[in-house]
Amino acid sequence: MEIKEIAELTGGKLFGGNDGIEILRVGALDTARENEISFVEKAETFQITDASCLLVPENFDAKLPCSYIEVKAPKLAFAKLAEVLHQTAKKSGVHPTAQIHESAVIGQGVYVGAFVGIGANSVIGDGTQVFDGVKIADRVNIGADCWIYPNAVLYENISIGDRVKLHAGTVIGADGFGFVRDGEHGYVKFPQIGTVTIEDDVEIGANSCVDRGSLGATRIGTGTKIDNQVQIAHNVQIGKRVIIAAQTGISGSTVIEDDCVIGGQVGIGDHATVKSGAVIGSQAGVLPRKIVRAGVWLGTPVQPLDEYKRQNAHVKGIVRLKEEIKELKKRVEGVARKQK
Amino acid sequence: MEIKEIAELTGGKLFGGNDGIEILRVGALDTARENEISFVEKAETFQITDASCLLVPENFDAKLPCSYIEVKAPKLAFAKLAEVLHQTAKKSGVHPTAQIHESAVIGQGVYVGAFVGIGANSVIGDGTQVFDGVKIADRVNIGADCWIYPNAVLYENISIGDRVKLHAGTVIGADGFGFVRDGEHGYVKFPQIGTVTIEDDVEIGANSCVDRGSLGATRIGTGTKIDNQVQIAHNVQIGKRVIIAAQTGISGSTVIEDDCVIGGQVGIGDHATVKSGAVIGSQAGVLPRKIVRAGVWLGTPVQPLDEYKRQNAHVKGIVRLKEEIKELKKRVEGVARKQK
Amino acid sequence: MEIKEIAELTGGKLFGGNDGIEILRVGALDTARENEISFVEKAETFQITDASCLLVPENFDAKLPCSYIEVKAPKLAFAKLAEVLHQTAKKSGVHPTAQIHESAVIGQGVYVGAFVGIGANSVIGDGTQVFDGVKIADRVNIGADCWIYPNAVLYENISIGDRVKLHAGTVIGADGFGFVRDGEHGYVKFPQIGTVTIEDDVEIGANSCVDRGSLGATRIGTGTKIDNQVQIAHNVQIGKRVIIAAQTGISGSTVIEDDCVIGGQVGIGDHATVKSGAVIGSQAGVLPRKIVRAGVWLGTPVQPLDEYKRQNAHVKGIVRLKEEIKELKKRVEGVARKQK
Repeated sequence: MEIKEIAELTGGKLFGGNDGIEILRVGALDTARENEISFVEKAETFQITDASCLLVPENFDAKLPCSYIEVKAPKLAFAKLAEVLHQTAKKSGVHPTAQIHESAVIGQGVYVGAFVGIGANSVIGDGTQVFDGVKIADRVNIGADCWIYPNAVLYENISIGDRVKLHAGTVIGADGFGFVRDGEHGYVKFPQIGTVTIEDDVEIGANSCVDRGSLGATRIGTGTKIDNQVQIAHNVQIGKRVIIAAQTGISGSTVIEDDCVIGGQVGIGDHATVKSGAVIGSQAGVLPRKIVRAGVWLGTPVQPLDEYKRQNAHVKGIVRLKEEIKELKKRVEGVARKQK
Repeated sequence: MEIKEIAELTGGKLFGGNDGIEILRVGALDTARENEISFVEKAETFQITDASCLLVPENFDAKLPCSYIEVKAPKLAFAKLAEVLHQTAKKSGVHPTAQIHESAVIGQGVYVGAFVGIGANSVIGDGTQVFDGVKIADRVNIGADCWIYPNAVLYENISIGDRVKLHAGTVIGADGFGFVRDGEHGYVKFPQIGTVTIEDDVEIGANSCVDRGSLGATRIGTGTKIDNQVQIAHNVQIGKRVIIAAQTGISGSTVIEDDCVIGGQVGIGDHATVKSGAVIGSQAGVLPRKIVRAGVWLGTPVQPLDEYKRQNAHVKGIVRLKEEIKELKKRVEGVARKQK
Repeated sequence: MEIKEIAELTGGKLFGGNDGIEILRVGALDTARENEISFVEKAETFQITDASCLLVPENFDAKLPCSYIEVKAPKLAFAKLAEVLHQTAKKSGVHPTAQIHESAVIGQGVYVGAFVGIGANSVIGDGTQVFDGVKIADRVNIGADCWIYPNAVLYENISIGDRVKLHAGTVIGADGFGFVRDGEHGYVKFPQIGTVTIEDDVEIGANSCVDRGSLGATRIGTGTKIDNQVQIAHNVQIGKRVIIAAQTGISGSTVIEDDCVIGGQVGIGDHATVKSGAVIGSQAGVLPRKIVRAGVWLGTPVQPLDEYKRQNAHVKGIVRLKEEIKELKKRVEGVARKQK
């Protein structure tokens, strides 16, 4: 793609000529080479680059050795451009080793890789890519243009929207973890016969798990992005455009509303509610049934950022308190001695 | 199943007539519809329902719009009834793509799905269901009526009891994590040549791992239930009827005795002992070689619940202490001034 | 192997005769039987044993019921001996069900199991063992004598050194977790088009994940050992001979230098640097961009061991502070009363 085409595509203002140079790839600022494009988020972070073109913020006034395009949000423009330049070629066709039930419906332009299993009455939407070793049980409905990476497993009765990405080793729809104690006999399984609904544009990282609802559904809203090794328990309700970083666990029936951001290794107890716009820092812990309001939260149990910082400062200040008490004791005894 | 049959099965007392209505499914109280049964744990939590029948506690005195059956433990009765109403139909037969070593022994009524591998001298007990993509190495002994979900992996020399459920992506018998430093050369692997024994009625969640013993065995006792993404290290000994929630990790050679309950994201150091009846809250940390007595434990490092609460209250009270010291200082100076 | 051969191999000094007895297996001190060898790390920990031979420290002066060999580092000698005695037999040949792209290059003495997929232009080095169900995408370069256990997944454009072990269910090269917010529309994926380089002698545990670089490479250095369920994010740089225990997560672009030891369930924020020789205790948390120097670190956020201990002692001492303030108050009022 020529630089002038990129300027058009991004809606930016082109500077520096050479607008006919062809851009083949995106690259990092420090390693990009000829025919590559990179981006600068803030003028002050700019270093030298060998890229042929840069996406930069508006009113960027550093002198540049290459063409550059001023745009409102350079990182965003860069990400969108990368989607165009680095489009993964889609495959189509069904590998002869795949085992597809005769009642399954396979859309147009679908790719089904080697050693894939697709169960009875399952549906694979147009353009969806199902890679090697994926196992799809009965009555699973997958939308269009999804990417299901190798060895992912989808249990029965699951609904997946369009453009969903499930990375390798993800498990969708395993039984939730619910048992009822039966005295000395141990535990009886509480029924785990619900479903999972994953809406459009969701991405779920490698080896993550989303359990099926026990009686109702576990639900993940449109545009939500989930990292690797995340655990979503039965009946959890996750809203739209939520970000969940790696190794976080969300317990049964908890609700995460739209536009929340949840760090890595966070633990959220059951039946909690995380209100829209809340940001929960890494390794934090939310107690069962807790309601977490909008704002930034840290620690176990979670506290608002300010309180958390204040308390940490106080704890660090205990040594000082000890000394103050010691001094005060001396002072009091001094005063007392004078009385005699 | 007719309502009067359910009353018989649960040993409960039927009220409200219509005992010939057929119950087809269990359901949640708020979403259950006609021909469904639900349950109420406590009279005061009762809401309206469209279910055709309810399991309720004894001496339940709310007025109900439907038939109801009084039982001692409604949730338990509900779980047991669900097992009867929602029995998953077993398959049998061996998929033609499965690769089964000629020396392996496959029981009666066993199902072996597509792309399953079963190694030399392995045994699959009667009625066991081995789903697509499961890999079973050599000398693995699996009991009767087990459910091994897709893409689970069992390394060699493992023993699994009856009615065990291993969810998708679980890995049983990978090498334990033991290395010996060899100066500048880095690490030499400590032998990981032991085994894993999983007793009857154990359930293990998706993508969980149970490592093989380094020299002896890693052991999981009868009736123990383990959630998703749990890590059980080499030579761990877990008793009977233990509950372990998601993302918890148990380090090498640690002993968890019977009837313990361990929350999610708990970390337990090596060579620790958790005594029978201990309950460890989520995200807690147990130090290596620590002995955790019966009772409830929280925090890192774990403290008895009372101590943990008291300490948290004290920490929150530091601000107050600071103020008290400030006031006390003023008071002392006031007293001192009067002396002059 | 005869005892006298073992004495030679380990370079140790043999005591107790019977040097012609054959040693067939290694064993634990308390369970080893005839024809087995075990080891004692410290004389004072010695218990009785039925082993036929022991590896013991130099100048060991306990009386032993069996032959023994004095060596400098008994546990290390034991581990090295176990590698010789318990060598897993290698297989070779390609299973007829494996799907190998015609452009892939398979070395001498390679084993490729059932239901394995190997993509275009991938290379499998001599003697490497690729077990059942492993999925290897296009342009993956695997060195010699590697062990890739069942159902592991390697995405495209990855480079693996010699003698690397990847346990079952590991996922190498899934997309890193990077998104750019696009106002109300939600998130656009930041390009995840980099690579993963894993050097020689690395071992990675079951169900662990190593994400590909977003633009550059994620790198794991020679001799590094990683436990189960560990998450290594995009562009992380891990040095040589690093130990990382189970369920630890390392965020994007973080650098772990040579010879670090990182406990289980540790969380390390993005762009942090852990300097060579640092030891980070289990469940610790390292903030983004933090530099962790050599030494032992604990807690969230991490503190040097001494500070951590001191602070914990202070927190436990708050009760005492409270009492001191109370007493001091009384004393001050006593002094004040006398003034009147």
